[in-house]
This record gives sequence, C-alpha cells and structure tokens, in this order.
Amino acid sequence: MAKRFPPRQIEVFEVGVRDGLQNEARAVRFEDKIRLAQGLIDAGVRRLELGAFVRPDLVPQMADTERVYGAVREGALKLGRAKAYALVPNRKGLDRAIAAGAKGIAVFTAATESFARKNIGMSIDESLAVFAEVVAEAKRKRIEVRGYVSTAFGCPFEGKVAPKKAIAVVERLAKLGIPEISVGDTIGVATPKGVVDVMAPLVTRFERKSGKKTRIAGHFHDTRGTALANALAAMEVGVTILDSSAGGLGGCPFAPGATGNLATEDLVYLLDGMGIRSGIDLEKLSATSLAFSRLLGRPLSSRYLQAYASACEARNEPRGALR
Amino acid sequence: MAKRFPPRQIEVFEVGVRDGLQNEARAVRFEDKIRLAQGLIDAGVRRLELGAFVRPDLVPQMADTERVYGAVREGALKLGRAKAYALVPNRKGLDRAIAAGAKGIAVFTAATESFARKNIGMSIDESLAVFAEVVAEAKRKRIEVRGYVSTAFGCPFEGKVAPKKAIAVVERLAKLGIPEISVGDTIGVATPKGVVDVMAPLVTRFERKSGKKTRIAGHFHDTRGTALANALAAMEVGVTILDSSAGGLGGCPFAPGATGNLATEDLVYLLDGMGIRSGIDLEKLSATSLAFSRLLGRPLSSRYLQAYASACEARNEPRGALR
Repeated sequence: MAKRFPPRQIEVFEVGVRDGLQNEARAVRFEDKIRLAQGLIDAGVRRLELGAFVRPDLVPQMADTERVYGAVREGALKLGRAKAYALVPNRKGLDRAIAAGAKGIAVFTAATESFARKNIGMSIDESLAVFAEVVAEAKRKRIEVRGYVSTAFGCPFEGKVAPKKAIAVVERLAKLGIPEISVGDTIGVATPKGVVDVMAPLVTRFERKSGKKTRIAGHFHDTRGTALANALAAMEVGVTILDSSAGGLGGCPFAPGATGNLATEDLVYLLDGMGIRSGIDLEKLSATSLAFSRLLGRPLSSRYLQAYASACEARNEPRGALR
Repeated sequence: MAKRFPPRQIEVFEVGVRDGLQNEARAVRFEDKIRLAQGLIDAGVRRLELGAFVRPDLVPQMADTERVYGAVREGALKLGRAKAYALVPNRKGLDRAIAAGAKGIAVFTAATESFARKNIGMSIDESLAVFAEVVAEAKRKRIEVRGYVSTAFGCPFEGKVAPKKAIAVVERLAKLGIPEISVGDTIGVATPKGVVDVMAPLVTRFERKSGKKTRIAGHFHDTRGTALANALAAMEVGVTILDSSAGGLGGCPFAPGATGNLATEDLVYLLDGMGIRSGIDLEKLSATSLAFSRLLGRPLSSRYLQAYASACEARNEPRGALR
C-alpha cells in the first residue's frame, strides 16, 4: 500500500440530496428533502450537494432548488459549518445560483464526447468554453467551484475509456482554475487497477507536485459491487476526498440500469474501522438514511444500512426518526 | 500495494452450494442443487463445497449430502476437473464422507470460544483434538483436507477479535498438517486494516517462509459492504485463494441479521478487470446464478448479478437457463 496509507482523515463529499435524488424514479417532497439534508448535516456531513440550477422540465427532481436555498436563507435548513454546492451547467444557471445565495457551485463535463452531448448537450470543448466564463464570474463573487468529469473509466456509448483521455479532460478543467475536480465512474464499471491508472498520475501531478493547487476527488458507483474497493484503491494512491451518497441513494437495485452511488454508510464504516477520521457519526447518519428509506417506502442499497435496519428490527428499537 | 500485486491468478473457492444454501431460509430441492453445482462447474469453477456430513436434524439444508455424492458417483453431477469438498465436524462425519466417496473434506473451528461452542458444540481445544484424528485418517485415505477458522475478525458474542488470537488458532490448525486454512469474517465486520493485520503475518509465515506448506485463504462476508474491499486488501498482502458464493447466496438482503458471502460474480468481475485469471467465465456464471435466483423467487445480493439481470431484461434477452 502507498506510503501515505492509511491517511489520518478523508473528506466525505455527500451527493445524496442531488446526485442521489436526481436518479430516483419519483421526485421527493420538498419537506422530506430538507429533512434529509438537515439529518445529514447534523450527522457531521461538512460538504454536500444541495441541488442543481438546471432546466426544471429536464430534471423535475431538482425543480425546487431555489426553494431549498430559500430554506437556507430563512434558517429552515441550518447548514452550520457545512458547505453546500449546487450544479450549474452554464451562465444562466450561475445567475440563478447567485440570486439564490449559493456559496458553492459545481460544473460538470465528461471524458467522452458522446456522453457530454447526451448529458449536457455540449461537446467537451463547448462545455469548457462555457465553464471558463462561469468559473471566472464565480470567483469574482467568491463562490467556491467544484468540477466533475463523468465517464472517466467507462462510457455507456463508447465503452472503455483510456486513462490518458480522462486525465486530459481533468487537466483542461484544472487549467480553468478549478480547485477541486471529482473524477467519476458514472456507470460503475471501474476496478481498482483502472482507478490506480487514472488517479495515481492525477494525484502526483496536481496534489504532490503543485502543492494541492487542484485537489482530486473520487466518485465511484456500486453498480457492479466495486465502489468501496475502488475507493480503497484511490485512498492507497493518495486521494483524500471521496464522494458518496446517503444509503446509496440514486440506485434502485431492482431498476434496470440501476447505478448506485457508493453508499456513505458503507464508506464511513470502512473509514471508522481503519481509524480514518471523517467527522461523520455513523449512528446518526444511519438513523437519517433509514428514516428516509421509510419515506421512500423501499430499502436503500447500502449494505451497512440494511444490516443496521435488520439490527434495529431484531432489537425492536425505535430508530430512524428524522429530527 | 504489495510487491506481488496484482497476482497473475487467484483461486476462487466456491462455497455457494454449502455455505450459501445452508444459510438460506428454505431448503432447496435436490434437483435444483445439482443443477446449480453443475452450472458453476461448467462456468469454470475448479474447487467448491458440495455439502456437509453434519446432523440432518440440525442442518436440514444439508440432509441430502449423501444423495449429492451419489449423483457424483452415478455421473448425474459431472465434476470434471473440479474438486469437491464436504464439511466434516468429527470422526462420524468423516466415516460418512468416506462411505460417500468424498475426495475432499473441510473441518471447521473458530477464533472465539463462545462461537465454537455455539456453532460446533465444542471448545476450540476439543475441536482441535477431534480434528487431529480426522485429519490423520483422511490422509491415510488420500482425502484432501481444508480448515476453516470462523469469527477471525469479530464474533457475535465476544465482539472484536484480536489478530493474535485468530492467528494462534490458524497456527494450531496448521500444526495438524492441514495444507489450506480459510480465515473467515463470519459476521462481515472486518475492514481492510483488520484484514491486513491478520492475513499479512499468516501469509509471511505460512506461504513465504514455509514454501507454501500451508496456504491461507480469505473468506469474507458482505454484511456491511466491505467484502470486496477486504478481498482486495488480502490480495495486496499476498493471499491467492479467495472464498466466494454464487450470487452472494447465503445472505438475503431483507432478512434480519443477513450475512451474505462475498458474491463470486462481484469478485470475478473485479479480477477480470484487473487482468487476474480465475478460470471462471463470468457470463456463464451469471446465467447460472440468475437462473437459480429465479428458482428461489428472489434477487440474490450480488451487485454484478443485479446489473446483469437488469441488462438482460432491458435487452429482453432470454438468459439464465440452467443446463
């Protein structure tokens, strides 16, 4: 294992409220979304996606993002020390984010042309040109920016992606001055070797040699059961930021093409067991996710959460109340 | 990562037909059990558990083990190059195994006293005394012997298990002349650090220094989602035999206290992706497990198998016919 392994701490970036809920079949009630976000923050989540300023007709699950930020302004949703991010596809989205009082945004492109066009309706070049303006304006407004590169390991349209291809797109995003870039296994096809092939050069170049001018995050999906093993491999080569989703929200195990995010519970259980600090209280996190899974009326895909739910049932303990 | 990583090949030891089915709520029909075993062997499985010569009143799911070996003798179940093993708790079980024509047996004890007494009704000392005679007689009969050490990382009654405690029991089994010992995370509580703490010293002592007089296998459960990450950590410290269960049989995700074995599909997908040979055809394996899950009338816990099933449905392909 790498010299820096295990690290003293890992930053867990919670994506359940956006990436998770956006991929749920049904839109979630505004009140439930706020309860989920508050529960996650109260459990110790320090950074999270809160919504997306995208076209409501295309992404109905995110249509209430202005309202979510309104709840933050009014104090109905208390962020405390947590930093919230909203996805922004273009200048129009940025203006909405600014108007809503967002302090953090995320821009997203892909490692493959066909996925970029399908997902954001732009070529990779076009997306980077748009982001250049968005990032510059966000900096003027002192808004933190995060970048995403989807299909970094495999693409539903182009199949396997060459590491150098993914690395090149990350480098172009970094050139725009984006301080943190999340490298995503969007369809959950990566295995630890591929993770090392992509992440090790990025960590060496952007964190070790540049003094962390740009930090690299790992975003893994558990579609084929490899997410946690991939997260371990990423940590072994020095990645210290990992994206995950409460309960594994975003992937229904029984829906065709299910694409579940790495579950935050499974990740935090592994981190706790290895003595790696995350700042997240696994018990509070699990109670929050369990309560939310009851609201959805189905079990979530997190293995740890299923064991937690079973243990609660076996002990007949009242658990999972969202405060 | 360790010098020998990644290894050129991993021996996958299939436990679905015994460890898997034994932990299913309902007993499986004899014909279905034979079909499952044949499908796994035809998919390339080279070593597998086929049954257990234990008390039928205590383990009804294994009551047909004599009949299963009868099918082997009659050629109804064709092992080909595959080696089959049956669990044997004592001399009486060994005599049944010999009478049935078994060529391989497995003896099992635990790293913790309370689990040994609950699971096999003997103290650890008593079990080792019994195994001494069983192993000696098996060698006279040229029967291969495998050893299991349960609760090597955690115990449902005693909690966390100190690595040196698990290591000591493995060493005592090795002294009996057992050439392969499987170290088990019976309740799925291990994380990669614990795996390294237990497996690294064992691999160094028994494989590197002794010239593989005793080989160490890793047996991980996915109860909390860590099984594949633990398998990766075990491979990184030199373990080259991993136990897994077709479809993750043995753990129903919705049963209280679910304890699923590492799914063979998830493991083989990771091995294939890393260029590590297992000899198993993932497509044939998945078709076999999917057909069996239809016989059980519920999805199995393997993430890869769920994605495979979804893809088959989406493409409306006829898959999962047991030959």
